[in-house]
Amino acid sequence: MSFFPSTLEVLIEKFASLPGIGQKSAQRLAFHILALPDQDAEAFAQAILDAKRSVHCCAVCQNLTDTDICSICQSPRRDERTICVVSDPKAVIAIERSHEYNGHYHVLHGVISPMNHVGPDDIKIKELVTRVADGDVQEIIMATNPDTEGETTAKYISRLLKPFGVKITRLAYGLSVGQNLEFADEATLMRAMEGRQEI
Amino acid sequence: MSFFPSTLEVLIEKFASLPGIGQKSAQRLAFHILALPDQDAEAFAQAILDAKRSVHCCAVCQNLTDTDICSICQSPRRDERTICVVSDPKAVIAIERSHEYNGHYHVLHGVISPMNHVGPDDIKIKELVTRVADGDVQEIIMATNPDTEGETTAKYISRLLKPFGVKITRLAYGLSVGQNLEFADEATLMRAMEGRQEI
Repeated sequence: MSFFPSTLEVLIEKFASLPGIGQKSAQRLAFHILALPDQDAEAFAQAILDAKRSVHCCAVCQNLTDTDICSICQSPRRDERTICVVSDPKAVIAIERSHEYNGHYHVLHGVISPMNHVGPDDIKIKELVTRVADGDVQEIIMATNPDTEGETTAKYISRLLKPFGVKITRLAYGLSVGQNLEFADEATLMRAMEGRQEI
Repeated sequence: MSFFPSTLEVLIEKFASLPGIGQKSAQRLAFHILALPDQDAEAFAQAILDAKRSVHCCAVCQNLTDTDICSICQSPRRDERTICVVSDPKAVIAIERSHEYNGHYHVLHGVISPMNHVGPDDIKIKELVTRVADGDVQEIIMATNPDTEGETTAKYISRLLKPFGVKITRLAYGLSVGQNLEFADEATLMRAMEGRQEI
């Protein structure tokens, strides 16, 4: 049974349909919207429409952008001979925050996942192959997540790109900085041991 | 520094301005919106505008409604001589869910809170006094929250309504159903002891 006015119910429903938002949170958010000044609520609605309309994939690297080609691909200060392959735009942000990388990116928008019916053709692998075939690429850094699907995708792509004679690398596995050894899982510890380096 | 397209940044900002939504969650929600089909995103924006435009306070009880007078105030099956005073619309829902109450409501839209600069004139107390003065009210049930501000508000209102000779009651304090005595706080236990009833 619904106790709220129908338009409010609809708004609660919309919020509840977002990932990680339960019924109670959705109610709280909807009430917050109602309590906003009119122009703020309208600005919220407009922000949804604007983002939806203007944000699309960069023609080169497939990262999200509101221009034809994203700012990273356009930048003359970045090394276009290195491409870091990530599963989604959030990974680009994470790597950019480390200020350690100065090359280009390629965003796959997903990983190969037979369980979720995502095959190689459902993510932006074709576009990556075209870039490698057409451009002067020297290194591909596979930076998909260190889980089964990320690994599978990295292996699949590296096999696909082998014929082009390009160097393909994978992000290092190991302990997190500041992590307590006691709480490291066995698989990570094993990888950290395997990848040990002389000091 | 911003890494996302500006319209996406704006959307993330909007989500992050909602209560209980941090920067990471806001990002996740904004990405979810981008991944939605166009018409779903538009429906979301529209839901915000619709709710904001059509939902307002009931002319009688101040509960949220999209009609002039809310369905509870309009219902002929409800006892209009009893008014349950609550701080906000969510409390109305909570009480309705208990199926125990058949009277009317009055929603204050807040509680007296000097700390937050909310005085008696900032919440819908005047409207309650008018209802009691004009109508045939027999009982006022104070159902504000059992905290300092809720108590203060209940006491303030009961003093204000005394001259009208109306019966004023307060929800009972005590243990929650199913609660373990071991974990009940002292104040609640004291109130439960005070309010003990013969069986």
